[in-house]
Amino acid sequence: MFEARLVSSGTLKKVLDAIKDLLNEASFDCSDTGIQLQAMDSSHVSLVSLSLRADGFDKYRCDRNLTMGMNLASMTKILKCANNDDTVTVKAQDDADCVTFVFESKKQEKISDYEMKLMNLDQEHLGIPETDFSCVIHMPSGEFSRICRDLSQFGESVIISCTKEGVRFSSSGDIGSANIKLAQTNNIDKEEETVSIDLQEPVTLTFACQYLNSFTKATPLSNRVSLSMSANVPLVVEYEIPDLGHIRYYLAPKIEEDEN
Amino acid sequence: MFEARLVSSGTLKKVLDAIKDLLNEASFDCSDTGIQLQAMDSSHVSLVSLSLRADGFDKYRCDRNLTMGMNLASMTKILKCANNDDTVTVKAQDDADCVTFVFESKKQEKISDYEMKLMNLDQEHLGIPETDFSCVIHMPSGEFSRICRDLSQFGESVIISCTKEGVRFSSSGDIGSANIKLAQTNNIDKEEETVSIDLQEPVTLTFACQYLNSFTKATPLSNRVSLSMSANVPLVVEYEIPDLGHIRYYLAPKIEEDEN
Amino acid sequence: MFEARLVSSGTLKKVLDAIKDLLNEASFDCSDTGIQLQAMDSSHVSLVSLSLRADGFDKYRCDRNLTMGMNLASMTKILKCANNDDTVTVKAQDDADCVTFVFESKKQEKISDYEMKLMNLDQEHLGIPETDFSCVIHMPSGEFSRICRDLSQFGESVIISCTKEGVRFSSSGDIGSANIKLAQTNNIDKEEETVSIDLQEPVTLTFACQYLNSFTKATPLSNRVSLSMSANVPLVVEYEIPDLGHIRYYLAPKIEEDEN
Repeated sequence: MFEARLVSSGTLKKVLDAIKDLLNEASFDCSDTGIQLQAMDSSHVSLVSLSLRADGFDKYRCDRNLTMGMNLASMTKILKCANNDDTVTVKAQDDADCVTFVFESKKQEKISDYEMKLMNLDQEHLGIPETDFSCVIHMPSGEFSRICRDLSQFGESVIISCTKEGVRFSSSGDIGSANIKLAQTNNIDKEEETVSIDLQEPVTLTFACQYLNSFTKATPLSNRVSLSMSANVPLVVEYEIPDLGHIRYYLAPKIEEDEN
Repeated sequence: MFEARLVSSGTLKKVLDAIKDLLNEASFDCSDTGIQLQAMDSSHVSLVSLSLRADGFDKYRCDRNLTMGMNLASMTKILKCANNDDTVTVKAQDDADCVTFVFESKKQEKISDYEMKLMNLDQEHLGIPETDFSCVIHMPSGEFSRICRDLSQFGESVIISCTKEGVRFSSSGDIGSANIKLAQTNNIDKEEETVSIDLQEPVTLTFACQYLNSFTKATPLSNRVSLSMSANVPLVVEYEIPDLGHIRYYLAPKIEEDEN
Repeated sequence: MFEARLVSSGTLKKVLDAIKDLLNEASFDCSDTGIQLQAMDSSHVSLVSLSLRADGFDKYRCDRNLTMGMNLASMTKILKCANNDDTVTVKAQDDADCVTFVFESKKQEKISDYEMKLMNLDQEHLGIPETDFSCVIHMPSGEFSRICRDLSQFGESVIISCTKEGVRFSSSGDIGSANIKLAQTNNIDKEEETVSIDLQEPVTLTFACQYLNSFTKATPLSNRVSLSMSANVPLVVEYEIPDLGHIRYYLAPKIEEDEN
């Protein structure tokens, strides 16, 4: 028996929004410690890693390890039927070929259950090596999202340059060129608006806009994002999911433009 | 001479929104008691019946019975030109081939008149027999609209099951199956949120989602809706139009699925 | 060196919105008195004339007269990257082939610069003779915009009739006919809602809806608009840009319908 309950279905909707741009279907690995998902995007360029801790759920029970392959478009249709303040419970039998989503309204007068067939998906678990990064940028997630969106109007790539003074995001193309500079701001009143940089050594790397824009679909999950960069290793874009876990995206830098 | 005035054109816009999904054109029958409209939808499956009482208008005069055939797309274009708080007056001469809509702003500085050609439409008046229904469900109109929209994602039909405990709406299809249960709630604080059931005997009937969704275009007219059901007779979905009249939709149950 | 700064980029966005419906590209003529733009729309029917005074900018410097030809679609992409409360500075070298837009956030932590190639555009400066108009109508810009939009549903032309009692806007087509009458209202409480008419003699002229609708894209710049009309000369539709300048649109009346 597997059963996981969240008092607010809004969080689960946001988790789904954060992955469905990159993945058409996904395997959720459930154990007594929580739910894990790890997958390459459908074009096999970037990697998504989601972790939801058992203790972050309002109720959690997992008698036996279980892998649930789900079509994310179908899951989206089902979650659209929940109000954001409905309680959501995800249920499955131990050897189930289907999963049930139960939505309960606050006053319990309305109870909806949606049963969905599970899928058998090929899985390749990728070892992700721990890395010491040359720099880690912590910044408001909305600002990062805005910058990626703005720069993708100008070119297909974004160059991210990090020094101890700040971060520069650049792009160029037919229209012209664009540069956005964020200064490091450690002493600001509102901590959530801070841009802070942990720097071992300056780094300049180039990334494909398209994937960065997909990663920023996680913005509603957290008002902060961190970007971890080192030469020749994938960028890690991480969003904490408050009290529940985190989602991380990995994207290798572009080689050619890096040498310009 | 026919003349009917409403202080707020918003109500007339909502009435039009409630029928234009089902009807391309419509005959409005005007007499000294008010305005009636009765028509099969364009695919001849469901029936719309609208009644606006003379005493619900701020001014009403109808010297001779009059039938005005109107193209509803043209009428929609005209009503879009009114602000919701404009006074609207509908006028026609006794043997007119056109109707005039006059919109007046609250302060009377702006007066607009729109003249539209009338149409000759075939009319078939259908006798609707009075029925004692096995059950009548009164519920919030917004909730009914939401349920129809949610379930139509899963299949083409909705099964409505009513017992004295409550109502169950179900649908199923390729994605999976969906069940929404509403408990009867007679003692709730806010009367408008109540789900109440007048039950002679339990009923389970199947209906086409597409038509139910069209009926829910009347939702802005009223925060309540009633569903009246008996085996083998059409469902009646009724919205009261406060202080003015009502709109009723009739839809026969699907036979095949009913027997499953 | 050319440099012009506005504390709020919102105004520049609105100016661009007011011209990009009519023009694909435009030459901005910069001198020490300010920035001028004058151009026929791409179908060579109407004329746009924009004037931004040097003293309306928060900082303004123009060492040598400069004409900057810009692609307005590219300029729109760049201005979309500014927040409305960002400071915007437009910069160019004296013999530059490019222009730079610099956006600074209120707290200066974020500085973005966008460089765009300039274009060489053919320019034809049209002498616009000063005219004494038979009538000048001052009215709320939102009301004018609404009327143009509403009437363009009914026909391709709008007839504007002005007498000392008020203004009438009319249109007709397949659906029927429409008339909107605005009374002159000199004594109203809110001056910005006033309709006032300076009349030498009554005028009735016919104009193409399409161009009037394009002119009303300037509505966000000002809550007032003036329409200046005389028989056989172009209508002038003018919006003041508070503390900065104005934008004027010229459109010749239609001849045929004028004679009906």
